[in-house]
Amino acid sequence: MKKNDETLRIISLGGLGEIGKNITAIEYGEDIILIDCGLGFPDDDMLGVDLVIPDFTYLEKKQENIRGLFLTHGHEDHIGGVPYLLKELDVPVYGTRLTLGILDNKLAEHRLDTIADLHCVKAGDVVKAGVFSVEFIRVNHSIADACCLAVKTPYGTVVHSGDFKLDLTPVESEMMDLTRLGEIGKKGVLALLCESTNVEHPGYTMSERTVGNSLDGIFMKNPDKRLIITTFSSNVHRVQQIINTSVKYGRKVAITGRSMLNIVGAAIELGYINAPQGSIIDINELKRYPAEQITIVTTGSQGEPMSALYRIAFSDHEKVQLGPKDLVVISANPIPGNEKLVGKIINELFRKGASVFRDSTVEVHVSGHACQEELKLMHALTKPKYFMPVHGEYRHLIQHRELAKTMGMPEKNIFVSEIGKVLEIDRKGARFNGTVPSGRVLVDGYGVGDVGNIVLRDRKHLSQDGLIVVVATIDSDERLLLSGPDIVSRGFVYMREAEELMDEVKAIAADTINECLDNAITDRAQMKSMLKDDLTKFLYSRTKKKPMILPVVTGV
Amino acid sequence: MKKNDETLRIISLGGLGEIGKNITAIEYGEDIILIDCGLGFPDDDMLGVDLVIPDFTYLEKKQENIRGLFLTHGHEDHIGGVPYLLKELDVPVYGTRLTLGILDNKLAEHRLDTIADLHCVKAGDVVKAGVFSVEFIRVNHSIADACCLAVKTPYGTVVHSGDFKLDLTPVESEMMDLTRLGEIGKKGVLALLCESTNVEHPGYTMSERTVGNSLDGIFMKNPDKRLIITTFSSNVHRVQQIINTSVKYGRKVAITGRSMLNIVGAAIELGYINAPQGSIIDINELKRYPAEQITIVTTGSQGEPMSALYRIAFSDHEKVQLGPKDLVVISANPIPGNEKLVGKIINELFRKGASVFRDSTVEVHVSGHACQEELKLMHALTKPKYFMPVHGEYRHLIQHRELAKTMGMPEKNIFVSEIGKVLEIDRKGARFNGTVPSGRVLVDGYGVGDVGNIVLRDRKHLSQDGLIVVVATIDSDERLLLSGPDIVSRGFVYMREAEELMDEVKAIAADTINECLDNAITDRAQMKSMLKDDLTKFLYSRTKKKPMILPVVTGV
Repeated sequence: MKKNDETLRIISLGGLGEIGKNITAIEYGEDIILIDCGLGFPDDDMLGVDLVIPDFTYLEKKQENIRGLFLTHGHEDHIGGVPYLLKELDVPVYGTRLTLGILDNKLAEHRLDTIADLHCVKAGDVVKAGVFSVEFIRVNHSIADACCLAVKTPYGTVVHSGDFKLDLTPVESEMMDLTRLGEIGKKGVLALLCESTNVEHPGYTMSERTVGNSLDGIFMKNPDKRLIITTFSSNVHRVQQIINTSVKYGRKVAITGRSMLNIVGAAIELGYINAPQGSIIDINELKRYPAEQITIVTTGSQGEPMSALYRIAFSDHEKVQLGPKDLVVISANPIPGNEKLVGKIINELFRKGASVFRDSTVEVHVSGHACQEELKLMHALTKPKYFMPVHGEYRHLIQHRELAKTMGMPEKNIFVSEIGKVLEIDRKGARFNGTVPSGRVLVDGYGVGDVGNIVLRDRKHLSQDGLIVVVATIDSDERLLLSGPDIVSRGFVYMREAEELMDEVKAIAADTINECLDNAITDRAQMKSMLKDDLTKFLYSRTKKKPMILPVVTGV
Repeated sequence: MKKNDETLRIISLGGLGEIGKNITAIEYGEDIILIDCGLGFPDDDMLGVDLVIPDFTYLEKKQENIRGLFLTHGHEDHIGGVPYLLKELDVPVYGTRLTLGILDNKLAEHRLDTIADLHCVKAGDVVKAGVFSVEFIRVNHSIADACCLAVKTPYGTVVHSGDFKLDLTPVESEMMDLTRLGEIGKKGVLALLCESTNVEHPGYTMSERTVGNSLDGIFMKNPDKRLIITTFSSNVHRVQQIINTSVKYGRKVAITGRSMLNIVGAAIELGYINAPQGSIIDINELKRYPAEQITIVTTGSQGEPMSALYRIAFSDHEKVQLGPKDLVVISANPIPGNEKLVGKIINELFRKGASVFRDSTVEVHVSGHACQEELKLMHALTKPKYFMPVHGEYRHLIQHRELAKTMGMPEKNIFVSEIGKVLEIDRKGARFNGTVPSGRVLVDGYGVGDVGNIVLRDRKHLSQDGLIVVVATIDSDERLLLSGPDIVSRGFVYMREAEELMDEVKAIAADTINECLDNAITDRAQMKSMLKDDLTKFLYSRTKKKPMILPVVTGV
């Protein structure tokens, strides 16, 4: 074995910029294990892009070394990239029952469900994977069946927190396994990779059960209303509480929205949601019950256009007509960037006469992520030698570093990493050493990676001022303009008001072409470049806009 | 006089969707007065649009009736549209000194400063305008010299709150004139138009002075740091407090960012900011002082790309290099929609090693708008017969209606209006009656209104999947394809990876054209439409993308 192989490497391979979230590789010698493989949604400047997945280049080169993909829980940003990974690499996948249940839906959409090598585990299980062994440990989170991972390596145990919170009164599930984490900590933890999402928030995250109490109050005080409740479809405990409260107050529950139907369906089938016989009705049966005996559970808590709640608000839902009898409960907070979308729906709900409750009104949402005191608990129990803050924007990682320092960890043992950066650990210590290919790959339609910076730059340009196509046919030999120039424009200005302007554009283009031909410039590239320059200059001076100029010069 | 003329009409003419904010017309007989004329910034779906201004169509028709434009304060959303209005209409403009000072900068940019008919007033002044008389009454707000207006009409007094808050300990200015409002209320107020921005927030808005206290604490505890403070440039009281605290702690103040330099310059000149001799230095003099004796005041509190703070964060500012010695104070809250931009700057500040304080850390910002108790105070003092909630999204207007009801106002006297809706008041009472031309006009470059729905729809389409131009030259008589089809694409996919696909596009286009010619279809419109259909279908099946197809068929 080469000396090189006696190094432990921890690498975050990327996705949407938050390290550790989308895919993490742990490597020793000829063994690699992967933790999570999520997808991200495009930033505002990634025009037309559907999804963002991690760059798998590094893994493709080391395909034969990969011993397994270990999933902490079933959220999109942790499992959404798995179908794309499995298209490139043949890797066994380990996860808990609900995680794999949700994953299975996705694999089916990609027609991978029959060939994927899925292994169902439960909290407490240990999986051997090459030189590593991976233990699944129960944590609480805003989805059921979430785990953190303790990975035994030749240099000691690496703990990856996944997404977690501590819930002392969880809904139909167990509390985070503090004891096991403490035991592992006692034996010695080499490194902790811990999420940082809520590091800016002091104290503890509230229990999911507090939402149940708020819901109970809302149900009790509004016996004459139809209740429409929206939340994240993956929050099965929230849905469970809505069902429980509905049953208690004699309401039937109808579900609408594709992902809500999918996940709640899977959760009921797998026993993660317990709905008494007859408590859930089909959305088509709404008419059979008076409004005040109905609870509707719907997607759309982030204001997503065309989600069920959006369609309900804008009178575009086939089965649900909104009115003053409706009380809409938004049981979620907007993710940064979605505030305006959510606001748009709320305005429309008010316009239709509905009442709206959300977290600023009543306590109808709690976070799934650890606040400062819970993060401290994770540090205190695991007592790691090295620490790498993960999951969070850069400011969160720095603030998590400061938190670790207040827990007594020396700054030199804390590694604030970046996508692709390699953390090396060996007998001599830990250090960053180099980078590997990593980052984000854009998915647009069927295309994976066929949209990049140039394409996005062009889309941006087109989106700002539109384009003008100039078409001319020339006879290079005779130096004659045979036809055109014809001018076609899209996304620039109202054409009927700009006829005069377009006539000028046409005249200038003709002048430029004729000047070229007169000066024996028949090279099309040169002619096009002159057309671009002349027209850009003219249009900017006249309109202060810079449409894309697309000259097409053909010859006969 | 016709009977029709004995009606008082109150109309909000639009802009960015918030009624009463951008321009309000009050009309009786042959007299019209206007209150404020703001601009808005484009929504995410208004691609490439620079600004949004109100639709002046209704006013253009009644030009000779307009007696004056009355400005409540100098914020963009209240005065930004004035240059565009004055280009269409010749109207005298009334405002306080700072308001007109800021307006003057804008008028100069539009070369209107020498021809505009500006009248400077102060709180307490009454202006006669046709049948109306307009009284300016002091309010507090996040800009100095703000007023609300009491408009005497033949049917009684209409009070327009403008933007306001109550500040019992204002910075270098007077408290809102509660007494005068109470006096007017005692005599009887016909209608109140009151802003609704903070109607969701209980209690009172904190005094601007609390920010001064927080700043003092920050200055005291960080004697070894350079302080970089960003806020809204128009918040001259905030800037005053930064200057005061800097002087107290022996720091020089340097200002950066175009609008900060403009407004602070104007405010100092007009006496609204009081800066002791030598307390403000030029940004070029920074090197002459140790870092810990410097306060930099900068634009960029909303994360605006290319603002001074953005350039400082991304190492693109000529005079300010960021480092661990810097403490950045963000003395503003992100306006909904700007959270991600602000977050991006904060991450970069952390990356450069700077420390960051913002409102979630220390109390370094207060709102300029009235919370629930202050709104109640406005209702209680003015005791209006009719009430129209203004300024705010639809949900805010509804919540303000509910607030008015708790103050004892009958629901039938409350009018939740929409842009363009006419509120009529006469001896018989008040009612909505019809609408007038109104809404938003998009400004793009020099173009006012030359970008509309079709142009925006095209820009949206182009931004999603780009475009493919198909150019062919045909001989209609001989039914021959003379040259092409040539294919040009932008913003679709990486061309070097799609050569094969483009060859197929070319072949399909050639087939379609030849089929047309064979079937004697030489009508270009029909040929183009077939090309569009065939290529859209093919490309969607192969890529799941729908680029814009732009066929150009020319004849020789």
